[in-house]
Amino acid sequence: MVSAVSWRQLGLAAVAVSLGLELMYRFVRRRRPLREVLFFPTPLICTEALLSPGTCCSCPLPHRTDGALSQLLRRLLQAQHTLELCIFTFSSPPLARAVLLLHERGVRVRVITDSDYMAASGSQIGALRKAGVVVRHSQSSGFMHHKFAVVDRSIVITGSMNWTMQAIQTNRENLLITDDGVCVQAYMEEFQRLWEEFDPAGYCFFPEEDQNGS
Amino acid sequence: MVSAVSWRQLGLAAVAVSLGLELMYRFVRRRRPLREVLFFPTPLICTEALLSPGTCCSCPLPHRTDGALSQLLRRLLQAQHTLELCIFTFSSPPLARAVLLLHERGVRVRVITDSDYMAASGSQIGALRKAGVVVRHSQSSGFMHHKFAVVDRSIVITGSMNWTMQAIQTNRENLLITDDGVCVQAYMEEFQRLWEEFDPAGYCFFPEEDQNGS
Repeated sequence: MVSAVSWRQLGLAAVAVSLGLELMYRFVRRRRPLREVLFFPTPLICTEALLSPGTCCSCPLPHRTDGALSQLLRRLLQAQHTLELCIFTFSSPPLARAVLLLHERGVRVRVITDSDYMAASGSQIGALRKAGVVVRHSQSSGFMHHKFAVVDRSIVITGSMNWTMQAIQTNRENLLITDDGVCVQAYMEEFQRLWEEFDPAGYCFFPEEDQNGS
Repeated sequence: MVSAVSWRQLGLAAVAVSLGLELMYRFVRRRRPLREVLFFPTPLICTEALLSPGTCCSCPLPHRTDGALSQLLRRLLQAQHTLELCIFTFSSPPLARAVLLLHERGVRVRVITDSDYMAASGSQIGALRKAGVVVRHSQSSGFMHHKFAVVDRSIVITGSMNWTMQAIQTNRENLLITDDGVCVQAYMEEFQRLWEEFDPAGYCFFPEEDQNGS
């Protein structure tokens, strides 16, 4: 027979075992957070394997699928539902192709860009608009200088890099990719703030100093 | 008396209790990860309370210590040992004052910047060098376009924002602050790569097309 004291000990032990197993389960099962850092410049490569899977390309560029540009493209092409882009200057053809591909697949793409740079030489903003992607732009003084993307409201990509070929191939640049919930929510809220602020319905073509008319 | 089976159970229970307590300890004690996102523009404020603690300032600016600039200054002023800066354009006086303050306190400050912009109007790079801060700059084509800082090799601050007053007060900008080890290590490695690459001992003032002299 087990004494009264032992029964209490056994009861306590059972609780401890349950608690220990629960904590172990949580410890083992916890999702590995996504945190990647990409550095540029990266060598010019053929991106057909990522942008037109299944096709065979014979261009003279290296047909590699590693490197920072490929990693960025892969992250973007993961999008299943939504893609929010808030990009100061957007003139990179492969990145524009990735965005158009997502738009064609039915992903809801929204773009915010800077009014001063959206019509600059090589800008892809016109091509995106022509394809039906909704683009809004800054209307206030100061640059809309962000360079971030949010994929499926669950991954944020941010850093120093504008989406230009010079940035990708020549500059020293960085991009941080994370699925941290606090970060994703902060960037989504900033995107939504700007999206509403830059609503064309609110355009003021002839701003008056005194809105009261006096 | 406790039976042989009960002894085994008690032994097992003791192990389980130890394991449970250990896991609980880790669970409770685990450090809350740092992840902050700062958005700009932010209103112009007096930063004396942060940069000259204890002094009384009577300037007409708002004497608030909240807001994105204050948060950034506080993070930088946390530095006890080292500060690595990799900044494309650096012309913000309060941020330069914070860096000089750290330098005076004995923090080992290293700065990398872009050769094309380090002598631009309002640049603080000259003032930093004059005070003895070691600065290196890009020597290759393409911009050194990074805008990141690493505080005490444990916190990285990165995003779209150059350290200029326009960026702080007028532009739409973001900074992500994290102490994630993977991110910090990646940025430290990039800093060290560039620091060595931009070592003035390796300057080539008269590059020759053929280094073999033929």
